Amino acid sequence: MELNGHTFLDKVLGIVKEETDHETALIQFKHPKELEEILRENLDISKKLNDQDLEKAVRKVLQYSVKTNKPTFRNQLYGGTDPYGLAGAWIAEAFNTSQYTFEVAPVFTLIELKVLDHILKLFGISDGDGIFSPGGSISMLYALVAAASKAFPEVKRIGMGGLPEMVIVTSEDSHYSILKAAHWLGFGIENVKVIKTNDHGQMSATDLENTLQQELALGRTPLMVNATAGTTVLGAIDDLENVAAICEKYGVWMHVDACWGGSLILSKKYRSKLKGINRASSISWNPHKMMGVPLQCSVFLLREKGVLHEANSAAAQYLFQQDKFYDVSYDTGDKSIQCGRKIDAFKLWMIWKARGDIGLNHLTDHVMEIAEFCIQTVAHRSNFRLVTMHMQCPNVCFWYIPTFMNNKMENEEWWNTTHKITPKIKEQLTLRSQAMVAYSPLRERKNFFRLAFTFHPVLEKSHVLDILQAIEECGEGITLPVL
Amino acid sequence: MELNGHTFLDKVLGIVKEETDHETALIQFKHPKELEEILRENLDISKKLNDQDLEKAVRKVLQYSVKTNKPTFRNQLYGGTDPYGLAGAWIAEAFNTSQYTFEVAPVFTLIELKVLDHILKLFGISDGDGIFSPGGSISMLYALVAAASKAFPEVKRIGMGGLPEMVIVTSEDSHYSILKAAHWLGFGIENVKVIKTNDHGQMSATDLENTLQQELALGRTPLMVNATAGTTVLGAIDDLENVAAICEKYGVWMHVDACWGGSLILSKKYRSKLKGINRASSISWNPHKMMGVPLQCSVFLLREKGVLHEANSAAAQYLFQQDKFYDVSYDTGDKSIQCGRKIDAFKLWMIWKARGDIGLNHLTDHVMEIAEFCIQTVAHRSNFRLVTMHMQCPNVCFWYIPTFMNNKMENEEWWNTTHKITPKIKEQLTLRSQAMVAYSPLRERKNFFRLAFTFHPVLEKSHVLDILQAIEECGEGITLPVL
Repeated sequence: MELNGHTFLDKVLGIVKEETDHETALIQFKHPKELEEILRENLDISKKLNDQDLEKAVRKVLQYSVKTNKPTFRNQLYGGTDPYGLAGAWIAEAFNTSQYTFEVAPVFTLIELKVLDHILKLFGISDGDGIFSPGGSISMLYALVAAASKAFPEVKRIGMGGLPEMVIVTSEDSHYSILKAAHWLGFGIENVKVIKTNDHGQMSATDLENTLQQELALGRTPLMVNATAGTTVLGAIDDLENVAAICEKYGVWMHVDACWGGSLILSKKYRSKLKGINRASSISWNPHKMMGVPLQCSVFLLREKGVLHEANSAAAQYLFQQDKFYDVSYDTGDKSIQCGRKIDAFKLWMIWKARGDIGLNHLTDHVMEIAEFCIQTVAHRSNFRLVTMHMQCPNVCFWYIPTFMNNKMENEEWWNTTHKITPKIKEQLTLRSQAMVAYSPLRERKNFFRLAFTFHPVLEKSHVLDILQAIEECGEGITLPVL
Repeated sequence: MELNGHTFLDKVLGIVKEETDHETALIQFKHPKELEEILRENLDISKKLNDQDLEKAVRKVLQYSVKTNKPTFRNQLYGGTDPYGLAGAWIAEAFNTSQYTFEVAPVFTLIELKVLDHILKLFGISDGDGIFSPGGSISMLYALVAAASKAFPEVKRIGMGGLPEMVIVTSEDSHYSILKAAHWLGFGIENVKVIKTNDHGQMSATDLENTLQQELALGRTPLMVNATAGTTVLGAIDDLENVAAICEKYGVWMHVDACWGGSLILSKKYRSKLKGINRASSISWNPHKMMGVPLQCSVFLLREKGVLHEANSAAAQYLFQQDKFYDVSYDTGDKSIQCGRKIDAFKLWMIWKARGDIGLNHLTDHVMEIAEFCIQTVAHRSNFRLVTMHMQCPNVCFWYIPTFMNNKMENEEWWNTTHKITPKIKEQLTLRSQAMVAYSPLRERKNFFRLAFTFHPVLEKSHVLDILQAIEECGEGITLPVL
């Protein structure tokens, strides 16, 4: 049987380069129904295309896709990719390998182990353990499973029904994945206790300790405290030393969700912001966020060796045979909830080999300097108003207040208007393809922008000024009534 | 700040082609410690390399990696990739996009929806729902969460502690991911009730019904029956019509783990083997297995719309804002347990566009014909002994019995020797780089080989004969005592 397709790979690099070059738009936004209409034929998959028509279809798909590699893509906590990481991703895809056993992934297994070792050391953990997971939310599941398994090893066997009442503690600014995890794993979201944060977004240590005491008094077991190093919106880093001291005092598993802020560990200058993270029982870090490893690249780390295997092993006979001819302790797959698992560590290895600790140190410092420049600019630019000056990760949060809103009483109505102005500006930014910038409300704060900076593409100050300028232009174009 | 790396991408295609061409070995096996020694410098990531040295390091990594694209790689339920799928993977990586909201992934969102629609139709489900997940094990988690959420919507809020006792029912030949899922989600593995299978590996309907009745009599709620379409080892497909009838009778969620066998739906000739699958409450299918989509590409389907969103939504304010300027019903991310999520559907779209239903039909028929040829050959070849003639998926399971074992009493000792011979043959096959073939014990059966066939690379009969020949050669080289 003959098979076509092998020559199409030769076209990919050209297609990708052309469809992401500097002349392409960040986004050609179309509303869903409109886009469906434009792409009707391209979306239909029942009919076979020849390579030439396939190329046309692919180019059309890419034409209407967001160019996440542009400096103006600031919509998420990821952005462009590190080119070495992308090369690593391409190689990994071509070698189509699953990471369960040494026999099918000999080098990739060693690479995962060595990369984890290096990362553990960076985080100040000696003799720890870890695994690559398909994302921060899955890492949160790993953390809770490990905590439960450590506290109640019988949970694996008997389930949650037979265990004492448990609670999970997190801050109000933490990522929503803890709610999903609490639901999935059978804790229930009512048993997630939410601690107040201060103006900068850091969890209140006093409230944390009070909550632990209250829960204990009520006879409920606090299973895990989830501290955050880099909250999603403000980029706040909880006082990890303080949280660690409290967790140690009450014997509670301390997880640090460092999915976003974990990249600061790469910088000699900024890693002190993570002080105390070495005392965590577990840590999650997503190099696919700030660091620009292609999606997905997520690390879950534990301070104690063995917990991961005990928590997750099922000893499948067909895969993890104990009568293999090599040292099966290198079959790392039974530590995982996954069976098939991508070799995500390889992408990180590529980047680290190409840049070294020193190159990654520079990239981290640079992104923090750009964010610092942005925050200083915003602080001094008229019509911009910072949500907080206290920058911890490279997040800069602010409102744009159009001139017509100046010198008015800042009452509830004024804030409600501001709340509507932010998405309106975003709409204009998007429709004009000038920038994609995230916005969000937060607690009592009305919709504001979040500019989050990532390693790639490497930004210059001029890029920051361009984005702020675009926001200003769109903001000044807003007229009342807003909606 | 200047940044290197962009030229490395130009080298990737060349490196990949050279390191996987027909002259490269399937595997140059080294034991873990030995390999660590050989790659010592390559594994160390603290030091920065220039592009030239990086290329050398990459080539060395690939030299010792398994070439999963070779016809002789038959070690897992995946193999070589579809070249169009690989092209899709490369484009997806280059476009580094997360699949949560329409605004960042407009076309990829539509592609996921359309591909899911097409797949749902193939499986005979109208107006269903679905999502791409990072693998079959995560899909199993989705299934159980959906089942629990449908039966007890309050689980999300209150957790498993407040619910009645539940059991999950599966066959003894089903995949181990259900055990991991039962543990993770708080059911406990003791509450997984295991049903006997027949000689071909199919779940006994009588035992299934008896078990449901017993559990109900004991006051426990059977939450889900997990049927399998393509067991891991034998490739058995449970009698889905029968299982469906029982599940309907007792009002139990029917999940079909069709991760392996689901690809048969692509063939007009063979899809009848999945008869009844349209009656399932949920289905998991991994196109990254038989079909050769690059890892990962896993689909989770549900017959009822809405369940997925109800079960999993957390309505994060910063991501799923309801005041966006477009129709936010296209923001599909809140149906997922993941936050960041790869655009895996795009790879499948590429393949489908390039081959059409018709091309995929041919590839499915071909793989089944090759497996049929293999089973017929094994059946008639001396010293080979089939585990079962009843082929359902393209799995062929057999022992190789070296000549010196012939004409002996097949007592316990004989079988124990056979049990040791199989891994010994595998060792030789691997060390000589002749083939990688899975082996496994199963229930009372001693270690046997499993040859599983996949779409890619497209095999000819000669490939099958070569593999059998290699097994024979290695088998005849075995001498007593085996260990």
